[in-house]
Amino acid sequence: MPISIEADHRLSKKEFEKRLPELRARLLETQSAFRKADFSVLVIISGVDGAGKGEVVQRLNEWLDPRGVDTQAFWQPSDEERERPPYWRFWRMLPAHGRIAICVGSWYSQPLVDRVYGRTKNSHLDSALNRVANFERMLADDGMVILKFALHLSKKDQRKRLKDLQKNPETHWRVLPSDWQHHQLYDKFTRTAERVIQETNTPKTPWFVVEAADRRYRDFTVANILLKSLRQRLAERIASPSNGPPAKAAVEARRRSGNALARVDLSQALSDKKYRKLLARYQGKLSRLIWAANDLKISTVVVFEGWDAAGKGSAIRRLTDAMDPRLYRIIPIAAPTDEERRHHYLWRFWRHIPRAGLCTIFDRSWYGRVLVERVEGFARPDEWKRAYQEIQHFEEQLAEHRIAVAKFWIHIGKDEQLRRFKKRQDTPYKRYKITDEDWRNRRKWGAYEDAVNEMVARTSTDFAPWTLIAGNDKKFARIQILRTLCRTLEKAL
Amino acid sequence: MPISIEADHRLSKKEFEKRLPELRARLLETQSAFRKADFSVLVIISGVDGAGKGEVVQRLNEWLDPRGVDTQAFWQPSDEERERPPYWRFWRMLPAHGRIAICVGSWYSQPLVDRVYGRTKNSHLDSALNRVANFERMLADDGMVILKFALHLSKKDQRKRLKDLQKNPETHWRVLPSDWQHHQLYDKFTRTAERVIQETNTPKTPWFVVEAADRRYRDFTVANILLKSLRQRLAERIASPSNGPPAKAAVEARRRSGNALARVDLSQALSDKKYRKLLARYQGKLSRLIWAANDLKISTVVVFEGWDAAGKGSAIRRLTDAMDPRLYRIIPIAAPTDEERRHHYLWRFWRHIPRAGLCTIFDRSWYGRVLVERVEGFARPDEWKRAYQEIQHFEEQLAEHRIAVAKFWIHIGKDEQLRRFKKRQDTPYKRYKITDEDWRNRRKWGAYEDAVNEMVARTSTDFAPWTLIAGNDKKFARIQILRTLCRTLEKAL
Repeated sequence: MPISIEADHRLSKKEFEKRLPELRARLLETQSAFRKADFSVLVIISGVDGAGKGEVVQRLNEWLDPRGVDTQAFWQPSDEERERPPYWRFWRMLPAHGRIAICVGSWYSQPLVDRVYGRTKNSHLDSALNRVANFERMLADDGMVILKFALHLSKKDQRKRLKDLQKNPETHWRVLPSDWQHHQLYDKFTRTAERVIQETNTPKTPWFVVEAADRRYRDFTVANILLKSLRQRLAERIASPSNGPPAKAAVEARRRSGNALARVDLSQALSDKKYRKLLARYQGKLSRLIWAANDLKISTVVVFEGWDAAGKGSAIRRLTDAMDPRLYRIIPIAAPTDEERRHHYLWRFWRHIPRAGLCTIFDRSWYGRVLVERVEGFARPDEWKRAYQEIQHFEEQLAEHRIAVAKFWIHIGKDEQLRRFKKRQDTPYKRYKITDEDWRNRRKWGAYEDAVNEMVARTSTDFAPWTLIAGNDKKFARIQILRTLCRTLEKAL
Repeated sequence: MPISIEADHRLSKKEFEKRLPELRARLLETQSAFRKADFSVLVIISGVDGAGKGEVVQRLNEWLDPRGVDTQAFWQPSDEERERPPYWRFWRMLPAHGRIAICVGSWYSQPLVDRVYGRTKNSHLDSALNRVANFERMLADDGMVILKFALHLSKKDQRKRLKDLQKNPETHWRVLPSDWQHHQLYDKFTRTAERVIQETNTPKTPWFVVEAADRRYRDFTVANILLKSLRQRLAERIASPSNGPPAKAAVEARRRSGNALARVDLSQALSDKKYRKLLARYQGKLSRLIWAANDLKISTVVVFEGWDAAGKGSAIRRLTDAMDPRLYRIIPIAAPTDEERRHHYLWRFWRHIPRAGLCTIFDRSWYGRVLVERVEGFARPDEWKRAYQEIQHFEEQLAEHRIAVAKFWIHIGKDEQLRRFKKRQDTPYKRYKITDEDWRNRRKWGAYEDAVNEMVARTSTDFAPWTLIAGNDKKFARIQILRTLCRTLEKAL
């Protein structure tokens, strides 16, 4: 998609005033229709200093209903932000469905400034832009409208604008020392910005370079592009609503993703005596390692997945028994709340990424996307298929931030599951654990097996490997988990 | 209410094993019924070192369905926490309806430890406990079940427990140096804890002192009290559901809360020329003050309330026009989300308290409780009546944290409102702003007048005063707001 370049860069006062009432009426009308939509809008306002980024943001706030707009500015990151992967702060601010986020500053700012000031090389810039592109594509795939504006001023115009602002006692305060500093670097800044724009301009995440010398033209153009894009998306949504009945899970030929589950030796077991000995050993070890990780500010993310009745809960308790309660948090994944439903499916997991030095245990996780959502048809095939990649990018960011990641699939045999279901039904205080859903899931054992095998094949990475746990013997499973987690921590420290 | 003291402090293994299955079954059964309730449970586990606070927490997690339990530990506060009033971190973690929060450490820890180590005097302790009592009463009034456990060990038993733990290589790691340090201070600690318990033990927020020398007795007792309290509350709720039809707003005699609105001189106005001059002056001033506040890490909270069509939105824009977009955030208050609905009504506002040095503008606010919720009967009389006090405590905490607070009620005449409603209906891009609700509200002008007068009388404090703005002339109103906010900031800096 070509970067939009408009021929006429001026708008007379007369023309502006003639066209403005209609623009405003349509903006509000459109925003009103959008409020209940199942997607959100993200607007990035960037560009050279003096081009009036703040003015544009204020204009948009003025012309839109501000109750549906979040203006986002990325100030110095807080320690809670610094203690998580860099994109955590961006996830935090993503707009919910029906809302518009306007960003002054964004994921582009740091890579761009670092490059302009020579703190990084082009190769660093490219890899940062690669991450940006993945991030934006993921959001756009999920339905978000992403509009990126680069306000442009010639070097001459920039100098004039800064001087005018400075001369006027009423606007004098708007000019910061850094604005003049950037002016010196105008050419380098523009060259780098062009590279950034070329690399991250896609049909679904377009850049619009807007000439900013004329304020009326600038504001009108930005608002008009926002209006058109929003109307177009609303029209598309009416034509083919994405939240219609979900596609039935296709019966697909067994993939060449291997059959990792079949290779798990379910006969492995431990004697009581050996179990007790090893339990004490590894719990002591884990306790020390979790404290050491805390000292070094290294966080831990542990993911538990597995068949119903595989023993996730009791395995988790064997970990937490060994951990100071101040150091861990269990996040049980159940149905999303309405705030969560109005975001990308990964948003609710980013929310729970721990601060530095803490451990988060997910009892079920983002892998629901490629397991239950796939098998039950809650996610469309295109959605769960792209999730493998999205999840990899997510976990890669955790790993780059030196977070230790351990993922367990607790495997049991189908017969063993039946035995446990029956036992649960016979034990009063365990009866609540068995629901009709468990029996329904059981009937889809084969489909789940396929999903698990593909998940393991496609998301087991060096930085976040899967460990398949032989779970028929609970004692063996627990020790295997404890031992693996200890090893993961030892490697990370 | 007397602090619960149980006669028999031991539970034999036989007895424990006999009674346990029933306890567990009833706990799970009760928790299952509770999951959809409209209240939450908060359990504080405190007590001397070595009494097994962590063990009790793990037991509760084991006996309950952990998916409905949040274990909360208050680690070092983050800078995001330090940059807000101290209770912000407690608000963050409050359990949603249908969930149980178990706290190791709480709002009691700091006041208690500070006193034991002689860093504070009894008078400081008492004022900290006063805040605690207000906080807990507010939560309990809102329906939260609050159970506070103090695990007790004699000095001799404490020494024995610590030594036993240390001797055993498998539990050696559980004993921290600080545990022995606390042991030295046992008598002082116990004396202070008794004072704390006496001061904060109420029927709705009771303390339970539990003898912890016998682990079985300890765990069984805590779980049993939790079970009984939860069952009792559930039974009460079935008997008199609080979410039945809300009480109709009682027609009450005009209060002696004065008539502040009547004293606003609505004829005040500004000429265009004077307005433009003053606007530039105060916007320049505000811009510098907001930057200065940022430098000094002083936050600002601005509240806008007013009649429909009073001009809140346009007044807010006159503020934000003068502020760097990185420094402010507008929070428009609309219907609460389901996450917000499952908490105390102040929770959603605490969420948005700004980090140090930033400004948050609330377009409508917590005062909805004593305005629309009162007039429309969304809150019961006992709810909105106690809100005056709750709001004062909330704002007091903001002020103590050196947050500058400005609250504006924009007043207009009833005729002026009618004129504006009609004008909005005739202007295409303003039409969306007028809804049937606005016309309905207008018919209740008198009831709202009473509510506003009482609100102003009861919540205008030295630390968070109300300013009533004469709004018939928008220009006059905007300048009055800008000037007042500048003064508030000047005083705060």
